[in-house]
Amino acid sequence: MKDPFAKNEIKIAVIGGGTGSFTMLSSLKSYTTQIAAIVSMADDGGSTGVLRDELGTLPPGDVRQCLVALSDSPKIRDLFDYRFEEGTFAGHSFGNLLLTALEKVTGDFSEAVETASDILRVNGVVIPATLDNVRLKMEWAETSLILHGERVIDAEFFKHDPRKADISLTPPAKANPTALAAIEQADIVVIAPGDLYTSLGPLLVIDGIGEALEKTEALKVYVSNLVSKRGQTDKFTVSDHAAEIERFAGNPFLDYVIYNDEVPSAEIAARYKEEGGYVTEVDEDILEKAHYKTVAGNFLGKMANAHKSDSIPVTRSLIRHDAAAVAKSILETYERERA
Amino acid sequence: MKDPFAKNEIKIAVIGGGTGSFTMLSSLKSYTTQIAAIVSMADDGGSTGVLRDELGTLPPGDVRQCLVALSDSPKIRDLFDYRFEEGTFAGHSFGNLLLTALEKVTGDFSEAVETASDILRVNGVVIPATLDNVRLKMEWAETSLILHGERVIDAEFFKHDPRKADISLTPPAKANPTALAAIEQADIVVIAPGDLYTSLGPLLVIDGIGEALEKTEALKVYVSNLVSKRGQTDKFTVSDHAAEIERFAGNPFLDYVIYNDEVPSAEIAARYKEEGGYVTEVDEDILEKAHYKTVAGNFLGKMANAHKSDSIPVTRSLIRHDAAAVAKSILETYERERA
Repeated sequence: MKDPFAKNEIKIAVIGGGTGSFTMLSSLKSYTTQIAAIVSMADDGGSTGVLRDELGTLPPGDVRQCLVALSDSPKIRDLFDYRFEEGTFAGHSFGNLLLTALEKVTGDFSEAVETASDILRVNGVVIPATLDNVRLKMEWAETSLILHGERVIDAEFFKHDPRKADISLTPPAKANPTALAAIEQADIVVIAPGDLYTSLGPLLVIDGIGEALEKTEALKVYVSNLVSKRGQTDKFTVSDHAAEIERFAGNPFLDYVIYNDEVPSAEIAARYKEEGGYVTEVDEDILEKAHYKTVAGNFLGKMANAHKSDSIPVTRSLIRHDAAAVAKSILETYERERA
Repeated sequence: MKDPFAKNEIKIAVIGGGTGSFTMLSSLKSYTTQIAAIVSMADDGGSTGVLRDELGTLPPGDVRQCLVALSDSPKIRDLFDYRFEEGTFAGHSFGNLLLTALEKVTGDFSEAVETASDILRVNGVVIPATLDNVRLKMEWAETSLILHGERVIDAEFFKHDPRKADISLTPPAKANPTALAAIEQADIVVIAPGDLYTSLGPLLVIDGIGEALEKTEALKVYVSNLVSKRGQTDKFTVSDHAAEIERFAGNPFLDYVIYNDEVPSAEIAARYKEEGGYVTEVDEDILEKAHYKTVAGNFLGKMANAHKSDSIPVTRSLIRHDAAAVAKSILETYERERA
């Protein structure tokens, strides 16, 4: 286990998957170099899934995005994000190949991430949440329905309420000790926005993570998702999201929930609805009574195209966080609480 | 064009392909950081060939080996040499993928090599001999026989004397100006041992290279191959090799030929012969009358296994140069000449 934080600056741990973490890290890194990305490790789709299946390695995709977010070298960042377009390697991201090759060469995913950080000149540290080779499992006890694998679950339209499903990893995973140390030592822990059942869930259920979140003296902030995931979290409110986050972790650890209360333009909302998506509803009455505090604001980003490394459906890129505003709000909240 | 040599040390340019250059660079780099590898660019076999065919990029394989030879970072060197063993990517060297992805990202092979040098912490500089996308052609005018492509020629058992064949590139290639500058500015130019018709030939026939070798004031040394290439240079003597080198370059530019005069053990010679290989014969009577001087010595290395990155048939790894002894001899020759 290495020391996730070294210098005397504000220490921020960001918990999440690929894109949500990418966005938060990209903005938060302007406030501190003492930043740790704790990354979900249950992805088994796309380029990552092929590499896992064929080579038996750990999933590189989410780690790659976090490394790129914290990199200081634009040229090497472009290299990591490059996707082969033709031939044998079509669809594979170069960064995924690099992490996989490094894991093969060093025999150790942690060391692979460290060497990749070195190559990318990363400020901060990227920490796989677990180093166990796991798959996601989602189980509805009542109906005996079981779904296996993030790829499968990601493509699923849930016929049953996911809030009644048990989320677990097979085999059960132990937390990476460095991830636990980062949570313990952090001044702020940010739960980045992300898919509840395929990104945040499989991270927060890792053995040890929930306990660390309960014990740490850090300010714990969840940045609520802006939009629902079609067929999975349709009509979920802000408090619904927060409740699931805490259910995964196994305890009511959140100090703050930060959410957007600006209504998107009619045009964008309409396009979302057309494809079955919903802007996350703010249920103020319930939020008012919650054990956590809330910060509301206009956190709608400009209509942004997806980060070029992502293969994200167009609709999902229509509404994005104004990550700079969110980061500012997190830091202000922290200063206010510590005053 | 960038300055291939910067500091005030002895300047050495090594001309060749992959393995021969790898060996010479690995030893010569202990004498100077002012070392330039000028690399053959006609390879179209193996992992390199697949990448060229599928992605239309320049051949990375020989460049990769030279980069690895000059790298200061053992961990990243291992990464570059890593070959995927299973799945879709089996047989591909990671370093080849990196150079190819970098060429795609930067749109420029020179810049790709520069960035890769940076990642690998290379001491010295690796210079593609040409930046034109070329294929090797070998043509016997008498019989109108034409062979196309290094992959094809490499696998060929010549039915006609290769010394009567014309070696060229299609389309005709112009030398990389940085390669010409390295030859011009060098104190010593070493022609590394290597395959005559598929490595040294396609480099030395590049437009401008022969002229630069004739004009430079550097000491020009050819390190003669230890063994013949089966079906291609069977029974070639030391002077036969040197004569072909000068034929490719178009002029008698060599100052020195360094060759081994130690007889390998009966056991090794027998194993070679069994597979149709020959230890290069020393034809002293002809060498005595040559326009170049010669240095003979015991340059036989220990029975070494192939460098792990190579996929070299076992027999080719039985006899290797004692590269440290060769390098020492080159430097001593230079000091003696300049005294």
